[in-house]
Amino acid sequence: MNVELKDLAPLLLKKERAGGNIDPAILTDILREGKDKNARRKAMVELAASHPVLSDRNMLFRNHSERYNFGLKKVHHYIKVVREQNITDKDDQQFLYSALGEPLPIDVHRAMFIPTLENQADEEQQKKWLPLARNFKITGAYAQTELGHGSNVQGIETVATYDKEKQEFIINSPTLTSRKWWPGGLGKTATHAIVHARLFLDGKNVGIQAFLVQLRSLENHQPLAGIEVGDIGPKVGFNAVDNGYCAFHNVRIPRDQMMMRYAKVLPDGTFIQPKSDKFVYLTMVQVRAYLIIKCGHVLGQTTAITTRFSAARVQGRKPNNKGEFQVLDYQNQQNALFPYIALSYAAFFSGRNMIAMHDAALDIIKSGKGSFEDKLAELHAVSSGLKAWLAENVSNGVEALRRLCGGHGFSNSSNIGHIFAETVGATTYEGTFDVLVQQHARYLAKVLVSSPNADNSSTGFLARAKFFADPSLRCKAQKPEDFLNFNVMREAFEARATRAIIRAAKELQATKNDLNKCMVLLTRASVAHAEYMLFASFVEGVESVPAGPTREAVAVLCGLFGLWLINKTLGDFREDNYISSEQAEFVRRQLVALLPIVRKNAVLLTDAWDFTDFELNSAIGRYDGDMYRALVKRAADEPLNKSQVPESYEAYLKPLIQSDL
Amino acid sequence: MNVELKDLAPLLLKKERAGGNIDPAILTDILREGKDKNARRKAMVELAASHPVLSDRNMLFRNHSERYNFGLKKVHHYIKVVREQNITDKDDQQFLYSALGEPLPIDVHRAMFIPTLENQADEEQQKKWLPLARNFKITGAYAQTELGHGSNVQGIETVATYDKEKQEFIINSPTLTSRKWWPGGLGKTATHAIVHARLFLDGKNVGIQAFLVQLRSLENHQPLAGIEVGDIGPKVGFNAVDNGYCAFHNVRIPRDQMMMRYAKVLPDGTFIQPKSDKFVYLTMVQVRAYLIIKCGHVLGQTTAITTRFSAARVQGRKPNNKGEFQVLDYQNQQNALFPYIALSYAAFFSGRNMIAMHDAALDIIKSGKGSFEDKLAELHAVSSGLKAWLAENVSNGVEALRRLCGGHGFSNSSNIGHIFAETVGATTYEGTFDVLVQQHARYLAKVLVSSPNADNSSTGFLARAKFFADPSLRCKAQKPEDFLNFNVMREAFEARATRAIIRAAKELQATKNDLNKCMVLLTRASVAHAEYMLFASFVEGVESVPAGPTREAVAVLCGLFGLWLINKTLGDFREDNYISSEQAEFVRRQLVALLPIVRKNAVLLTDAWDFTDFELNSAIGRYDGDMYRALVKRAADEPLNKSQVPESYEAYLKPLIQSDL
Repeated sequence: MNVELKDLAPLLLKKERAGGNIDPAILTDILREGKDKNARRKAMVELAASHPVLSDRNMLFRNHSERYNFGLKKVHHYIKVVREQNITDKDDQQFLYSALGEPLPIDVHRAMFIPTLENQADEEQQKKWLPLARNFKITGAYAQTELGHGSNVQGIETVATYDKEKQEFIINSPTLTSRKWWPGGLGKTATHAIVHARLFLDGKNVGIQAFLVQLRSLENHQPLAGIEVGDIGPKVGFNAVDNGYCAFHNVRIPRDQMMMRYAKVLPDGTFIQPKSDKFVYLTMVQVRAYLIIKCGHVLGQTTAITTRFSAARVQGRKPNNKGEFQVLDYQNQQNALFPYIALSYAAFFSGRNMIAMHDAALDIIKSGKGSFEDKLAELHAVSSGLKAWLAENVSNGVEALRRLCGGHGFSNSSNIGHIFAETVGATTYEGTFDVLVQQHARYLAKVLVSSPNADNSSTGFLARAKFFADPSLRCKAQKPEDFLNFNVMREAFEARATRAIIRAAKELQATKNDLNKCMVLLTRASVAHAEYMLFASFVEGVESVPAGPTREAVAVLCGLFGLWLINKTLGDFREDNYISSEQAEFVRRQLVALLPIVRKNAVLLTDAWDFTDFELNSAIGRYDGDMYRALVKRAADEPLNKSQVPESYEAYLKPLIQSDL
Repeated sequence: MNVELKDLAPLLLKKERAGGNIDPAILTDILREGKDKNARRKAMVELAASHPVLSDRNMLFRNHSERYNFGLKKVHHYIKVVREQNITDKDDQQFLYSALGEPLPIDVHRAMFIPTLENQADEEQQKKWLPLARNFKITGAYAQTELGHGSNVQGIETVATYDKEKQEFIINSPTLTSRKWWPGGLGKTATHAIVHARLFLDGKNVGIQAFLVQLRSLENHQPLAGIEVGDIGPKVGFNAVDNGYCAFHNVRIPRDQMMMRYAKVLPDGTFIQPKSDKFVYLTMVQVRAYLIIKCGHVLGQTTAITTRFSAARVQGRKPNNKGEFQVLDYQNQQNALFPYIALSYAAFFSGRNMIAMHDAALDIIKSGKGSFEDKLAELHAVSSGLKAWLAENVSNGVEALRRLCGGHGFSNSSNIGHIFAETVGATTYEGTFDVLVQQHARYLAKVLVSSPNADNSSTGFLARAKFFADPSLRCKAQKPEDFLNFNVMREAFEARATRAIIRAAKELQATKNDLNKCMVLLTRASVAHAEYMLFASFVEGVESVPAGPTREAVAVLCGLFGLWLINKTLGDFREDNYISSEQAEFVRRQLVALLPIVRKNAVLLTDAWDFTDFELNSAIGRYDGDMYRALVKRAADEPLNKSQVPESYEAYLKPLIQSDL
């Protein structure tokens, strides 16, 4: 080899791009929803990248306290920039905020506290509190989860008692486990919190309600009397956030600080039952839909880093002294990496579908025309199942991709460890896996036994349940290439999902709806349906790409995705020999046969996300492949390198070296 | 519920133990290799736990620099205690060292630098350097990996040139990518390093050799002339270790600082070829065997934490107002958790077998009687495959278990995130997955086409390859319970492994040994064989438990393990319908049917590892289940809670709250 490795790396990446035959700009338009939106996004990213504080990326040199304090500094400057530059568009604000590189102490204030005021406060309350919150005159937390209860909201122990005389609620934490635990921003930042508590009126339990409680003085930030509040300590991720705890000791708040848009308490203590709130469901669906798209983005970032590294890195001699293999040459590397490139696209297309379905439902509700209850139930169930599946598999994917970068992946200079730490929490928040898959699968079982609507995009195939469940049904593939036919594959996903749903429905019946006895089967049904939807959304996505080589490349990626899913759970697809032993071998062969075809455009397919180097923040994932200089440069930033001799040398190392202890 | 949750948690854990019917002490004797050894272990753990510095467990409050400096402090006190208390037994030293709770800057000095001197230095060199190293008059790194090359050792770019006149080697880093990168302890601690470099004698390349190079002054710890050295920055794990970089600029060392036990350079520059070194292989096997056992320990720790938490935690109402479910009641929780309890045992039993095989080979070599070449090749291949499989699956298991603890798992108070970060590096170091599975599978393919010895414990079944490969062979299970029969299951693992190995061997032949075209199939063969060995070792392990209810419980765990593995890769086992569609359903049913049986003793099976609360360091994994008080107590330690108002309030938060920016 005549070229030095450090110079070879950029050349290899260039060569890889030159070898492709697609136009990534076509895909960028799709993934970033148009040129204009993407240009605005990139302008905001550039604004952060050129700001002395907002451009900071030294978070992993810091401990939790330091990250929190620097986090507040970022918050301060973010708000300052938004005001000074008059950034009023919500998308623009979000683009800038996302460019800050990590979750921050006001995440929950933005994403939960303000929306709760918007959705659950009545008009008068909104008039009073919203301007304060929006202008950061108060900062808020969302205090639902307690030390003893998370998923089971009905188990919340915090108590609110109404004092008719004074027209006040008295908030109390009656037990150790009733203290609020986990809310982001609660520990050190929030001046106020939305507090969920069980309300008692004249000794009568009227259920869990939401209250606005002031926690800290607006003068000096000291906790108010009766408030015990603090940070719960470091976590796997979110270390710039002060996830906190809070206990209430007879804290009194005025009657008008219960969220009164739906349920109400009149001055005399009369309780007004809330009407059922369809918007709450829609908000949950929307939050999940964006989380699904975010899963696509996260995998887009990580596959971009890993693919570039794999292309630019050489390791291992080729036979006959022909130099070294690019890591991307290795069959195992392709086999592990490419499905996640595919999954990033699948997640994006599914999220896009979810948002479209949400918006359509919202239109129906707003217009007052047509029934939306069914649509709402569907959206809620389907978004649960997709979120559960994607949070698990995208987190696992990020970690798998990190390992594909070997030692350099283990270093924080790759940034993949950071991406993982800030992603994997999604397996828990907004609903844990077990809870979500049950909601999803129970819905599917219900649709199965009702009369499924064949036109429905997510469950329409259940109208043909008998056909799919017929044990004599056989997959029609005659040769490996037949598994590139989307109709052949779609039928496989439909048959497999139908059978899993039927199996779960039967078990529900047999156990008289003893959910706990059916969980494993319900989970299998949810997973089977989520994978069907991901594949189906991907196929639709392919069709949205303009015809030409770019669409063809995305179609191949979609084929690879389907084959990967089938191969992962081959046992399911082989049920009743729907896929025969011979066809299983076709699946495996075709999967491997696609690898070199995907490889041709692998770098361009990940370039298409159009993440900037600043966003990726990865020495090994640079667009130009100049990774070795970047790694050396990044190591020089490590604070330990500020002095040649470490500060603990005199005290601890020198005595060992120079004398017996 | 009349009992408060905080008091209920310990009661539930007690109840869980009372419901079991096994004696965990019987298992402790097995897992800890006898009462005496375990008593010594616990004495060392207690010594650390009661020491003001060694008992420190605040590592996750610190950043990398702080962790490194505190790490040196721990090292200092560890050595002091060993000397003052005259702890000379190697096991005792290791027990104490392991109780320090994290990898430390002298890990590599202990595990690689000293052993290299012992194994590769000649007698004279040993006499000079070993006392210095053992007494910490010098501290050493093991500098093989470079920025540009890791797995491909032959690609190392560092150069050593022999200067005949001065009888010195000149060590040089000719390129940016030739700088050493990653070695633990190299950045700030090591005074010396074993440096791997390509040796040139009279302009002739004689291959990679190992040299002892002084890096820093023993007077003031400053880097010597020509040495550029530093820390590579924070990582996913190992943040108390100064993984470092080093570049050499014409650094001269005397001739007698090349490791000369095998290869030699005479004063006149004559090169003496090394004899092949069988001990190097044996050392690698031993390192892997202990890594395999360590995988068992890590899962033992994590399953103990998760099982206790799942038993003590309630979440979710039972039907008919009968209180709340223990998390351990949930079918999904059992289905996800119990296989990892089983895997912890399987890893331990496999590691134990590996060590026995290693010791037997060593005896043969030492006695000079009998052939050991075959045994060495087998040990090397088989330990590669097991290490690859376990590093991946145990890391994934730890992370899966963390998620099973919900939000509390995400908090560092659970300690599972820390365990993961310090474990997952094993997927990369001591051989990455792709390299190891290839070595393993190529060996298996070779054995297949030679004449396999039926008595061989790891590959003997290949003597019956024809029988297992016969496509008309059918699994004999007639009903779900038949899958509890170890012979039925063992045959399934043998048939599946045989077929995978044949498939890979055929592909090697068809591609004329083009390894890269066979990697996916080689990987499948390696995985199939590793799982066969894990299951077979577990079955042997069951037989080593004294007859009675305890053995029965371990046998059930072994059955669950086998079923879990089969179900995970059902497609493999269904090849040629060896397992029919109906039998696949038996597997799934039997797996679920075992869950309540395993549950009966789940807590006791993890208690059996006998980890102390100090070792687990987990608020939610305490032996007594008093987790809520522990969580509150641990949060109080968080440095952010030292003041009510965070230090950044005045500068960044107050201006937002009290005035417009």
